[in-house]
Amino acid sequence: MDQVDQYICSQRERYERELADLLRIASVSADSAFAPHVREAAQFVFDKVQKSGLETELVETDTNPLIIGQWLHADDAPTVLIYGHYDVQPPDPLELWTTPPFEPSVRDGNIYARGATDDKGQMMTHLQAVEAWLHVEERLPVNVKVIIEGEEEVGSAAITDYLATNANRLAADYIVVSDNSMWGPDRPAITYGIRGIIPFEVIARGPNKDLHSGVFGGSVTNPANALVSMMASLVNSQGRIQLPGFYDDVVPLTDEERRAYASLGFDEAGYQAQVGVKELFGESGYSTLERRWARPTCDINGLSGGYQGEGPKTVIASEARAKVTFRLVPNQSPEKIAAAFEKHVKAHCPPGINLEILFYEGGEALLVPSDSRGIQAARRALEAIFEVEPVLIREGGSIPIFNDFVKHLGAECLLIGFGLPDDNTHSPNEKMCLKDYHRGIRSSARLLEELAKP
Amino acid sequence: MDQVDQYICSQRERYERELADLLRIASVSADSAFAPHVREAAQFVFDKVQKSGLETELVETDTNPLIIGQWLHADDAPTVLIYGHYDVQPPDPLELWTTPPFEPSVRDGNIYARGATDDKGQMMTHLQAVEAWLHVEERLPVNVKVIIEGEEEVGSAAITDYLATNANRLAADYIVVSDNSMWGPDRPAITYGIRGIIPFEVIARGPNKDLHSGVFGGSVTNPANALVSMMASLVNSQGRIQLPGFYDDVVPLTDEERRAYASLGFDEAGYQAQVGVKELFGESGYSTLERRWARPTCDINGLSGGYQGEGPKTVIASEARAKVTFRLVPNQSPEKIAAAFEKHVKAHCPPGINLEILFYEGGEALLVPSDSRGIQAARRALEAIFEVEPVLIREGGSIPIFNDFVKHLGAECLLIGFGLPDDNTHSPNEKMCLKDYHRGIRSSARLLEELAKP
Repeated sequence: MDQVDQYICSQRERYERELADLLRIASVSADSAFAPHVREAAQFVFDKVQKSGLETELVETDTNPLIIGQWLHADDAPTVLIYGHYDVQPPDPLELWTTPPFEPSVRDGNIYARGATDDKGQMMTHLQAVEAWLHVEERLPVNVKVIIEGEEEVGSAAITDYLATNANRLAADYIVVSDNSMWGPDRPAITYGIRGIIPFEVIARGPNKDLHSGVFGGSVTNPANALVSMMASLVNSQGRIQLPGFYDDVVPLTDEERRAYASLGFDEAGYQAQVGVKELFGESGYSTLERRWARPTCDINGLSGGYQGEGPKTVIASEARAKVTFRLVPNQSPEKIAAAFEKHVKAHCPPGINLEILFYEGGEALLVPSDSRGIQAARRALEAIFEVEPVLIREGGSIPIFNDFVKHLGAECLLIGFGLPDDNTHSPNEKMCLKDYHRGIRSSARLLEELAKP
Repeated sequence: MDQVDQYICSQRERYERELADLLRIASVSADSAFAPHVREAAQFVFDKVQKSGLETELVETDTNPLIIGQWLHADDAPTVLIYGHYDVQPPDPLELWTTPPFEPSVRDGNIYARGATDDKGQMMTHLQAVEAWLHVEERLPVNVKVIIEGEEEVGSAAITDYLATNANRLAADYIVVSDNSMWGPDRPAITYGIRGIIPFEVIARGPNKDLHSGVFGGSVTNPANALVSMMASLVNSQGRIQLPGFYDDVVPLTDEERRAYASLGFDEAGYQAQVGVKELFGESGYSTLERRWARPTCDINGLSGGYQGEGPKTVIASEARAKVTFRLVPNQSPEKIAAAFEKHVKAHCPPGINLEILFYEGGEALLVPSDSRGIQAARRALEAIFEVEPVLIREGGSIPIFNDFVKHLGAECLLIGFGLPDDNTHSPNEKMCLKDYHRGIRSSARLLEELAKP
């Protein structure tokens, strides 16, 4: 391992050059005009994985190719599946970039380009680590599988299908993903929990056409009025969700977790300034971090109905719509919440309204026990390289592909970000800190060894 | 008067021809491409009023001309101001017209064309009546002023300005307007009350940019959630408006009015089928007609915020908006309601939201005492011609120009529609029943005589 680490430290220049080569490829999955570049990035990843010494396949799909690699010669050792994606978000608005998004530029120790942190830079940490092991030791301490997709930014359709039908081929004990952030500069983190999600759309339909609100107002239920009353009934003024039984299955935060979050020194004032609100607010009795990481929420994501132009218009629109998502926490069932939501909304629907509820696919929250073997291995690996104890955090968002990994592979997910919170993911001037890129490669190499330990 | 009536009955063919000539002019005020036709219609009306024997002026304005006429030789008699408009709504969608909108076509006793009932046909009833009087008797029983505008369909800007600065010139005891409907076929009506209005827009602003609802959800007030809770607080489940003091100044319906409305035999089932709802609903304790005519309402006219496309999106939008109008009834003050609205919404605004309320111009409700001289005269005139007692009705909508008439001229408004509820106003296949056109002319001639009576 020491020799692997020394080798990695000697290759910094090449690692940066290779990352820049990948970042130069404009692999925007959302825009078909970039399709040749998406293909080029897939080929780049294929070549990299193959040169590392893995059996490698470029799997054609209906959409963008998957790159699958494997090295399965560590008898009796666990199997680690490394996941990443080679596609990137669209770069616009272009005028806000200091240097062009697909011309990587190093400034102040950071490399700036679209995809620098999400996910090319972070993905490359693991590919370089695997390559270093095989180069130096001609072996890996664990069995390694790699799956890299090219459409994470547009819904992961191909890998989702592939997982459903090729679970055996991808079977693993651990899934390692780096597509997120450390706690802060020089403070690595392991994300041991992510929230689930269940999205809905509520359509309140009333009159068969838009009506004049003067002539008809007062005699028919206005769908927009009905919608706001149904939507307002979901959460009370204390931030508590009002669906009957909503909190029944919620796994409460442990005292240890609450102490740990409180000790992180989360900068509330800085956070408030970042989001630009005059006051933070959420479910009473919980801190901001607890609310974001470990408490369920109900957010209206879209409202529409009637006249949206300038000035007033005296109309009763024939329909009004709301899009709503609930974030779920461990042990809450999307199906049970969907049933409770439907029942609640129907019970709060005023007379004279035809109610339609659209149910979208949800996903459960995930929580890895903090004393699991994977978490313990990751803790040791990160502490060895960063020389500081990593913090255990959760993530407020949902990562749908994780649900598929867990569902089809039954593996433990290790989410270890090497990005930073100010990396401008999905925004202009996306960057990755090169110091963390290199520490990420070293950590990944170390993690493979730690995961091999009994 | 008998001779005037006989003369009118002898001129049916000419009256229809003249109406068709005016309907052929595509005087669409909303579309500048029709500007020459708007001008042509103004000239047509000018010629008609002048040939009738009134002193006539075509008043140029910043927008479309006003036609003003007067005959002021009935000493000691009251003065009647006749109002109408020569502009029409756009005719589209053209493909839904059985015959082209500006090629008047008579079918089943109706004349079909854009503007047939709104307002060219109804306006012409009064111009023909004045002309008949002066032709037959060389005098009018009352002093008559006429003001016809060319932009009623787009906000009446010119006449509003003119009224504010020329109140003396237009001073009158009665204002006669026909721009609405009878109660039904062969059942004339006098509209003695119209509701007022006060419109608002509420903007709830939260984060300084759209946020990911997974990462940030639970820690900041979502403007869309805040908006629905503020909006839902306006009306309770019994249809009662919750602004403190909202009903304090409301003039209650009299027992006589309630009996009268109940006796009209309003077809609830037909109305429900017309608007296409599975159930009618409104303020508890009132009938549908009472709710539409004489009770205040609160309708959300527009909702917007966040994602409105297909499928879900995990966003907390930085702002959400609602447009709201209250319909007011006699004695409610738009200013007091605006103050109560502002106070109520502010009190219901959750933490962390920057609230902006836009106040648009409102108008008071109008109510003419049913025993007023004008109403009594109109009753006699309509009964003489239609041979049935006219019904006294109210109107749920607001007619902003009426507020200006009352404010600047202090006159009593007589709103006597000669249209029918199924005239397709503002819709394809607009029509006017020719029988009512002629009865309207006779009624108008009779009304002038009845208004002269002490």
